[in-house]
Amino acid sequence: MSLTQLESARQGRITEAMKQVAADESMDVELLRSRIAEGKVVVPANVNRLATRFCGVGQGLRTKVNANLGTSMDMASVENELKKLDAAVRAGADAVMDLSTGGDLRAVRRAVMEACPVTVGSVPIYEAAALAARKHRNVTRMTGDDMLEAVRTHCRDGVDFVTVHCGVTREVIQWLRRRPRVCDIVSRGGTFLEAWIETNGQENPLYERFDEVMDICREFDVTLSLGDGLRPGALADACDPAQIAELQVLSELARRAIDGGVQVMLEGPGHVPLAQVQTQIRLQKEMTGGLPFYVLGPIVTDVAPGYDHITSAIGGAIAAAAGADFLCYVTPSEHLSLPNAEDVWTGVVATRIAAHAADIAKGLPGAADWDRRMSEARAAQDWKTQIELCIDPHLAQQKRSAGKSQNEDVCSMCGDYCVFKVRKDRAIGVRKP
Amino acid sequence: MSLTQLESARQGRITEAMKQVAADESMDVELLRSRIAEGKVVVPANVNRLATRFCGVGQGLRTKVNANLGTSMDMASVENELKKLDAAVRAGADAVMDLSTGGDLRAVRRAVMEACPVTVGSVPIYEAAALAARKHRNVTRMTGDDMLEAVRTHCRDGVDFVTVHCGVTREVIQWLRRRPRVCDIVSRGGTFLEAWIETNGQENPLYERFDEVMDICREFDVTLSLGDGLRPGALADACDPAQIAELQVLSELARRAIDGGVQVMLEGPGHVPLAQVQTQIRLQKEMTGGLPFYVLGPIVTDVAPGYDHITSAIGGAIAAAAGADFLCYVTPSEHLSLPNAEDVWTGVVATRIAAHAADIAKGLPGAADWDRRMSEARAAQDWKTQIELCIDPHLAQQKRSAGKSQNEDVCSMCGDYCVFKVRKDRAIGVRKP
Repeated sequence: MSLTQLESARQGRITEAMKQVAADESMDVELLRSRIAEGKVVVPANVNRLATRFCGVGQGLRTKVNANLGTSMDMASVENELKKLDAAVRAGADAVMDLSTGGDLRAVRRAVMEACPVTVGSVPIYEAAALAARKHRNVTRMTGDDMLEAVRTHCRDGVDFVTVHCGVTREVIQWLRRRPRVCDIVSRGGTFLEAWIETNGQENPLYERFDEVMDICREFDVTLSLGDGLRPGALADACDPAQIAELQVLSELARRAIDGGVQVMLEGPGHVPLAQVQTQIRLQKEMTGGLPFYVLGPIVTDVAPGYDHITSAIGGAIAAAAGADFLCYVTPSEHLSLPNAEDVWTGVVATRIAAHAADIAKGLPGAADWDRRMSEARAAQDWKTQIELCIDPHLAQQKRSAGKSQNEDVCSMCGDYCVFKVRKDRAIGVRKP
Repeated sequence: MSLTQLESARQGRITEAMKQVAADESMDVELLRSRIAEGKVVVPANVNRLATRFCGVGQGLRTKVNANLGTSMDMASVENELKKLDAAVRAGADAVMDLSTGGDLRAVRRAVMEACPVTVGSVPIYEAAALAARKHRNVTRMTGDDMLEAVRTHCRDGVDFVTVHCGVTREVIQWLRRRPRVCDIVSRGGTFLEAWIETNGQENPLYERFDEVMDICREFDVTLSLGDGLRPGALADACDPAQIAELQVLSELARRAIDGGVQVMLEGPGHVPLAQVQTQIRLQKEMTGGLPFYVLGPIVTDVAPGYDHITSAIGGAIAAAAGADFLCYVTPSEHLSLPNAEDVWTGVVATRIAAHAADIAKGLPGAADWDRRMSEARAAQDWKTQIELCIDPHLAQQKRSAGKSQNEDVCSMCGDYCVFKVRKDRAIGVRKP
């Protein structure tokens, strides 16, 4: 059996994936290797899918961006998923997750993986739940074996990381009962498992059988993404005892994974008040000793459906600046409908903005160079370079053309009063009539 | 001559404007009065324009949002300005500024003021510069008297606050020479004044004749908005000696204004790296003893033209959470063209999101209630209330309808796997075929 990236790193071996990530990130490969060995960096890289462009996640690396894709009952077209994938990749996503719950889940996943040049993640329990729902019209009728089998299927199919909600335990759920929430559980996986535990009166199999989960992941070098099934789904629910209790469980499981040679990251919220975002990130980092943290948003207000790419860009920027390593985008359709390809594009760009602003804050070497080049082009009234350097050159050109000035060297905001023009010409005025 | 709100407050008098603001903000009117007396809150309210809906800015009040309107040489239609004004007001702007530089500036300003139910600000020096440009084809040919006359004209016409770049002094400019910037000066007013000072070899008249500026403002109770002509226009330029030197000058002038009974706020940047935003705000608050701070953005990366409503929502949220009182929006067209009505709408909503997220962070009483009501509606699958509570109900409904689920009680993201439905029904499954 081949070694995981973590096992290789621990043995002092430098893999091809490490070399590529180190080169991409301008990080010394030996430093990268040591961080992988400590578990502070992961390089999700399923041995069954080596075509992937590797993506390192963790300390000292560029903040990464994930785009959630996937069908639903109402929109189950594979073709549409491929369009969304294309939009995500062109917009610059570092990874995508297939969260399909509608149609032939395995066919969708395989189509996405075949077309996808970047890292792919998935949530196997959706498939176990969907099979139970189809067979028994009841998600709680899946068995522990079904859950493990779904994990194995996804890993064998080649996904690079899997979200597994191992922290939704009976004890953690008790905290929800003791201190009820406004929105209870909003994670789908968390909800399925809570319903399963309550109905069957048994412990979460993904927790009880964590060693088996680890064995599967180790076999294919799939990175475990420990899902926060109890992530807050309302500002009012953030940082409550249930969330923190689950984080404790996940921290412990993550340590076990690392000891067992399995790459691992933790997932985080969710809906979080702005003033609490930094605390949430620092808490995870302290509790885990600096393991990679993958957050969804966070969204800093509940009231802006239609603009949740913005609410999450605010939270994501603050989170990443505080140390979050991997941002899951939120699209303008969140809370309203399944996103379309345009939503995917907008969500990825907004999240990349947050990640980039945070990389400058993190002091990532070279992160601010892009901004400096843009500002130099601006000062030089070099519009061609300005447009090329834009995070979305096509949109920028479109907006510039739509509101075009009569004078090529300025824009229609200021016309001849353009500050750069005034400074250059000194004696400025109005155009010749 | 009537008293300014500040003079009234200092004499212990409670005005109609104070009563309305106190009621709007659920603040004790005596507390509000005392803050106005200290200069920590302003209520811009030109005595010549008492029809306005008053808007308090400062400590303990809701973070306010301004939308910049105004013509340019390339787009000088009054009709278009009225469309933009309508979009700004409907989107929830607390104030608008008319920054016109094209067409008949006074006619545009008057049309906007007549139609505008909210607070209006302006930048008189644009008019002085435009007149000089038309007459002499050279903005530096305006005189100190022309500048003062423009201030007087705007005040007499009824604007509630005026941006005056009094801090662009010869000494401050020397700092720019000693430590050059990537983008030098990007404020239009600042650029005009710097060109004027350099060409005429004289001190900034708005600084030298500050007492006259104060006299005019006091006469009409126009709030002075001390413009930061040297605000950074590139991340690389933020917090440089020139910016801080100007802030020192503005802090001193602000104190003189308050002593003279003139309401005053300071303007702030601009382009600021994320990790520096909080410091910038705290610095202003410390240097001025807590006077109202009105910031533009801040934009946390230079590379996202087309998305600067997002870069500024990130910076604005952090700034307001750190104490900024008044956010000037940035639209998706910033750096590319004059915004259209759609850009104005988007800019106002994005900035309101930032302001609201910050108000929760500031601990503004009741700010989080909106979010709680939304989350309760979400948990209850009460879609009607959810849509009504959205910051932009029309867009939210549109997105929900476009990606509609077959089942009314859920959305197409999760369909029957909706967590709230699963929790309610327990035995969930797929729909009947």
